[in-house]
Formats: sequence, C-alpha cells, structure tokens
Amino acid sequence: MIRNIIQEYKEIFLYSLIALFVGIIIGGIDALFGKVLLKITQFRGEHAILLVPFLPIAGLSITFLYSYFSKESIKGMTLVFQTGHGDKERIPKMLVPLIIFTTWITHLFGGSAGREGVAVQLGATVAHTIARKLIFLNNPRILLVIGMAAGFAGLFQTPIAATFFALEVLVSGVFLYEALLPALVASYTASMTSHLLGLEKFSIDLPNTLTFSSELLFKLVLLGIIFGVVGGIFALLLNLCKNKLTILIENPMKRIFMGGCILSLLFLLLHSGRYCGLGTNLIQFSLMGEQIYQYDWLLKLLLTVLTLSVGFQGGEVTPLFSIGASLGMVLGSLLGLPVTLVAALGYSAVFGSATNTLLAPILIGAEVFGSQNTIYFIIVCAFAFIFNGNKTIYTAQKRFNFFTNENIKL
Amino acid sequence: MIRNIIQEYKEIFLYSLIALFVGIIIGGIDALFGKVLLKITQFRGEHAILLVPFLPIAGLSITFLYSYFSKESIKGMTLVFQTGHGDKERIPKMLVPLIIFTTWITHLFGGSAGREGVAVQLGATVAHTIARKLIFLNNPRILLVIGMAAGFAGLFQTPIAATFFALEVLVSGVFLYEALLPALVASYTASMTSHLLGLEKFSIDLPNTLTFSSELLFKLVLLGIIFGVVGGIFALLLNLCKNKLTILIENPMKRIFMGGCILSLLFLLLHSGRYCGLGTNLIQFSLMGEQIYQYDWLLKLLLTVLTLSVGFQGGEVTPLFSIGASLGMVLGSLLGLPVTLVAALGYSAVFGSATNTLLAPILIGAEVFGSQNTIYFIIVCAFAFIFNGNKTIYTAQKRFNFFTNENIKL
Repeated sequence: MIRNIIQEYKEIFLYSLIALFVGIIIGGIDALFGKVLLKITQFRGEHAILLVPFLPIAGLSITFLYSYFSKESIKGMTLVFQTGHGDKERIPKMLVPLIIFTTWITHLFGGSAGREGVAVQLGATVAHTIARKLIFLNNPRILLVIGMAAGFAGLFQTPIAATFFALEVLVSGVFLYEALLPALVASYTASMTSHLLGLEKFSIDLPNTLTFSSELLFKLVLLGIIFGVVGGIFALLLNLCKNKLTILIENPMKRIFMGGCILSLLFLLLHSGRYCGLGTNLIQFSLMGEQIYQYDWLLKLLLTVLTLSVGFQGGEVTPLFSIGASLGMVLGSLLGLPVTLVAALGYSAVFGSATNTLLAPILIGAEVFGSQNTIYFIIVCAFAFIFNGNKTIYTAQKRFNFFTNENIKL
Repeated sequence: MIRNIIQEYKEIFLYSLIALFVGIIIGGIDALFGKVLLKITQFRGEHAILLVPFLPIAGLSITFLYSYFSKESIKGMTLVFQTGHGDKERIPKMLVPLIIFTTWITHLFGGSAGREGVAVQLGATVAHTIARKLIFLNNPRILLVIGMAAGFAGLFQTPIAATFFALEVLVSGVFLYEALLPALVASYTASMTSHLLGLEKFSIDLPNTLTFSSELLFKLVLLGIIFGVVGGIFALLLNLCKNKLTILIENPMKRIFMGGCILSLLFLLLHSGRYCGLGTNLIQFSLMGEQIYQYDWLLKLLLTVLTLSVGFQGGEVTPLFSIGASLGMVLGSLLGLPVTLVAALGYSAVFGSATNTLLAPILIGAEVFGSQNTIYFIIVCAFAFIFNGNKTIYTAQKRFNFFTNENIKL
C-alpha cells in the first residue's frame, strides 16, 4: 500500500516538475501575446475610424492564412477538447502562431472577440507537443490539461480559477483531479512569469457591503437565473449562427468578407467603436460606475456572436465578462443592489454559464474581486450554471450524467 | 431543442419541489437528533465520572440493538454509498431509529464520535424511502443524494457545503450536477427548519488579517500537506483498526465490551473526559485561543479511531473538526501565523482530507468562518486533498480517473 502511494506521488511530482517548465514557457508566450494585444487595442481605440473599415480585408487575410498554413487549425478549441478526450492524437503546432497572429489582426481592425480561448489553445498545444516528445510519460493528456490551465493563468493571472477551469471544462460533471497539483504548479508559474514580464493583472477589491437576508437571497437567485439564461443564449446563438452561416455562405472567404463589411459598418455606426475588441471598456465603465447604456450588453453580445461566426479569431471570455458586467450594472440598479458588486457577479456568472462551468467563475470572482464576497458568487454562479439550458460555447464539451452513467454530447 | 430543455427543467423542478418537503422532514429529524445530542453532551460533561465507567455496558446494548432489529444497518454509511452507486436496491428503514438511538448512547457514556455521519445516513434513508414510494420518479437515487445534503445541512446549517458534499462524495472526481438545484433546495429548507426548531448554528466570523506573500503561500502549502497527511492517517487507521479488530475478536459483543473497558479507562485517565464525545470542547478552546495541549489532536484522533473501530456509533466529522482545529492551533504558533485562523483552516482541511472531498471543506470554511478568508481555505484544502494518500473514511467511496477512464475503489 505504501508502495502504491509512493508510486502515485512519484508520478504526480514528475508531472509537477514538468509543469514548472511548461508554465514558464506558456507564461512567456502569454505575456507576448497579451501585451501586444493590449497595445493593439489601445492603438485601435485611438484610430478606430481609420482601421475598422478594413475589417473585411483583414478577414480575408485571416481565412487565407488558415487555408494556406493549416486548414485543420481553424477548429481551434474543438481540437483541444477532442485531444483532451483522447479522441484525437495531436493538435497541429501551426495552430499556435496562427491563432496568435489572426487574433491580433481581428483586434487591430476592431472585431469583437476575446483572448482567453487563444491562451488556452496555445497552452494546450505547447504542453501537449512537449508531452509527446517525453516518451517516458504515461499520459500526455495530463500535460494538455496542465497547458490549458497555464494558458488561462498566464493571461488573466488568476491561477486558481485557471486550474479549476482546465479541470472541469473538458467533461461537465467530471473533475480531472489527477492533474490538480501539476495544474496548480503550472498556473502559478505561468501567472508569475507573465506578471514579471510586465503583463498586468486586472483586479478590483470590492468591499462586502451586503447583509444576508431572505430578500437578498431571492435577488441573488434571480440574478443567477438571468445571467444563466443570457450566457446560455450567447452559446446557443454562437453555435446556431456558425452553423447557419456555414450553410448559407459556403465559401469561407465570401463569408468573412461579407460579415466583415456588415460588422465594420455596425461598429462605426453604433457609438463609433464602443463594441469593438475585448470589451474591457465596458468592464471599466461598469466597475467604475460610469455611463453604461441599457442595451450595451445586448449589442456586445450580438456583435461578438457575429464576429466569431463569420470566421474572425479570438476567444469569447473577455466579451462574456463585459456582457455580464454591463448587464449586471443595469440589473443592479433595477434591484436596488450595489451596482459594482452586481456587475462583478455578472462578469463571473455569464462567463460560467456560457462555458458551462461552475467553479471557474466562482474562483474568478474570488481572484479578481477579492474573496470577501465569495458567498454571493457561489449562489449567483450556481444558479447561472443550473439555468444555462445546458448550452456551452465549446461544442466538443461532453457532459457526464452519473445517474444514467452516460456521456452526453452537449 | 426547446422541448428538450423544457423536459429537462420539468424534471429538475419536480425533484426540487419534492426536495422542499424532504428538506423540512429531515431538518426536523436533525433538530431532534442534534438537540438531544447536545443535551446529552452537556449532561455527560457534568457527570463524566459517573457515566463513562458504564461505556462497556452501553456498548453491549448497542451491539444487541443492531443484532436484534437490523443486522444489516450496522454497515451504515457503506449502505448509503452502495445504494447511491446503484449497487444496492434499498437501505433498511430501521437504520434511522437505530443510528440515532445508538449514537445517543455512545455519547451519553462518553465515546469519542461524531454526528454528521448519522445525519447523512438518516437523510439518505428517509429521502430514498420516500423516493421509492413515488413511482413516477425516474431516478430515486437523485433523492438519496438530496437526502444526504439535507441531513448534513440540517445538522450543521451550512447548506452550500452540505450540497457540494453530497454531490462530490459518492465518486471522487465526479460531480452529480443533475442533483444540484434540488440538493440546494433541500439543504436550505433543512437548514432553516432545524434553525427554526431551535438547533443553533456554530459559526465564528474570522477577520482577514493576512497579506499575501510568497512566504505565506509556502506556509499555507505546508499546512495543507500536514493536514492532508493527518486526515489520511485518520482514515487509514480507522479502516485498519476496524479490519484487524474484527479478525482479532470475532464476537462483536466481546469486541465492543473489551474496547469499552479500555476506552472508559483511558477517557477518565486522560484529563478526565477531555476526549469524550464530539470534541466541541477542543474546537472551542482552539478558536477562542484557550489552553490546547500539543498532543490533544493526537489523543483525540486515536481515541476516536478506537471508539468507532470497536463498534460504537456516531459520525467522524466533528471529531475531525476538533483534531484539525487543535492541530492547527499548535501549527499556527509554530509558524508564526494567527492561531485561530490556522485552527479554522485545520478544522476544514482535516475533514476534507479524511473524507477525500475538496469543495465541501472549502465551503465549510466559508460558511462557518465567513467568506473573507476563502482564498486561504482553497489553497490549504487543495493541498490537503492532494496529500491525503488517496485515503478516505468511506470505504465504499469510488474514484473516477478521467485519463484511464477507470472507476477505482479507494
């Protein structure tokens, strides 16, 4: 028995040691990717009118790059999930430069998209590629999971949320505890590395100003349900639009060009660029209590869905944060609750419901807004998770139902 | 698709509605069980010298009651797990009065044991018995899980921790999300019911006085590892002692009588009754900063293991809380950290490592000590979970390994 324990821990320590190095590498790539992206965002913010009209052309270049260098890589997150599930052998290495570069292009010309999907994909690909070279490892998929955690952590510098995200996202209902320690190690290393390389962490310490009552509980549950439904709708629309548009306009060049034309027009007409890019502007406005329009969340949602559906690149998480925060701001004042706290709750919960995860959003709440309000994040995120209609932006995510013993594709 | 969603939610709402009633019933039974237990504990505290010598006779009566009314019920928690896994059809109804009554006897005469195992067993049995009568339900096992949550919640009034405990404990690595909403409903109802019936919640609001640094992180990791090893040793010793003693002394009457003799002697000799019962005295001392001996945790551990191994009844969790808290107090002053906070961390983490759960102890931390220190509970409990040597006090618990796709018996 003692021998079994030693054997098991020997393996965990081996993976953790590798995780240390993998974390540094991925943290470094994240820092490069993230810092350039922020520069691009700032530059686009200052020259939106000059840049956004070129969105259709930017789209053509993205589609061309993928079709020239690696057609398969366009599947992005789906490749990560399939490899994680063991249904696929490997992820093409070309995915890493492609996704980084095309995300930069998307953002430079004002597409509404995120960045974490990029970080998770590059983390997973780098770690899995390394793992396949280390033939003495029993299971390279453990390193893929570690890489996902490190990618997320390096970008957002929320190592605990990143760890649990990677552990819970592949199969809803299943936790990959075998990877817990190495994923924590990689996340902390990636997070510290990117921080030392000058990528800043976004965090705001929100005081706990609420007192618990049954009225508050009722309002929190209501918020959870609304955030859940909105996240579910985002996931539903994204999948629906992607599918419909692929059928409607078969040629990807035509699709991204036409989409780009419509988008660049909308971006400029609707508050001249307010809904371009990551949406950090909306997050800032919400959490600082500045001007948020009632419809901000809806426009950001629709424009992000359209941007990603026609073939532009980038993640979904930061837009989800901004949709949740700006919706939270509106709901907070409707319900007579502190608006910044409700914005923070929305920030986490809409992300959780759209990705069909529960622990990651709660921990995002703790790591970005301080752990003093954790109990509210737990309640809101739990109800958001329950009421997302079992939708998810990750079409390759699976769900395990313990009572029927079935793996269900979501 | 919309139809699927409606169908699924109809079922969830049905279970949640039933959970409302089940929660009230279980909360009521919990209140009765818990209040009498506290009276007994107080009474024994005042008359230890008169009562503890009768422990061997009390033991005989316990063994007699089980052998007379329901031999099978002695398996207790194992029955709950097997039924939860779907390996068994039903739990005998007699389990409920038997476990309640024999736990009272154990505590009246000074055995060192807990109470939550009792609450979880009675909750599971009551809910599952009801579910088997409601033939229109697709899956009575969902109600068993709900009952476990309600039992735990009614006794400790920590509804969120109770919910996640029930969801994560059956199979480590698998979360029973299908039961999330009904389990939350049942937990809140049970918790409110027992509270209204006069059972008090134990909670202390601990301020957050630490500032994060790499030195603190190192100390937290170290604490987590120590708590993890101690919880693992508790589980290991309990299983080992139970098995060895069953082989060594085949007759259960003889076993409990001889064990009772040795125990009553030890209880009286070692600080005259300090290690009897739940161990709430040690928790009180630790969290109030009163006198705790360096060896308190060790003696409480050994005496609890012995009490439960020879056949006395009760749970393990409250003794685990007290072992963790008194060990935490010692470690806190060794490491130069605020002792009450470290006691609180030990309270949660030793429970988590011995039960092989991760979310329940973190949430216990948030619900008992306030959520302002959640980030520390996450780190310490995660490392305790990793370093418990994969031991668990629940011998029927399974573990799911995603990477090998195997169910492993722990």
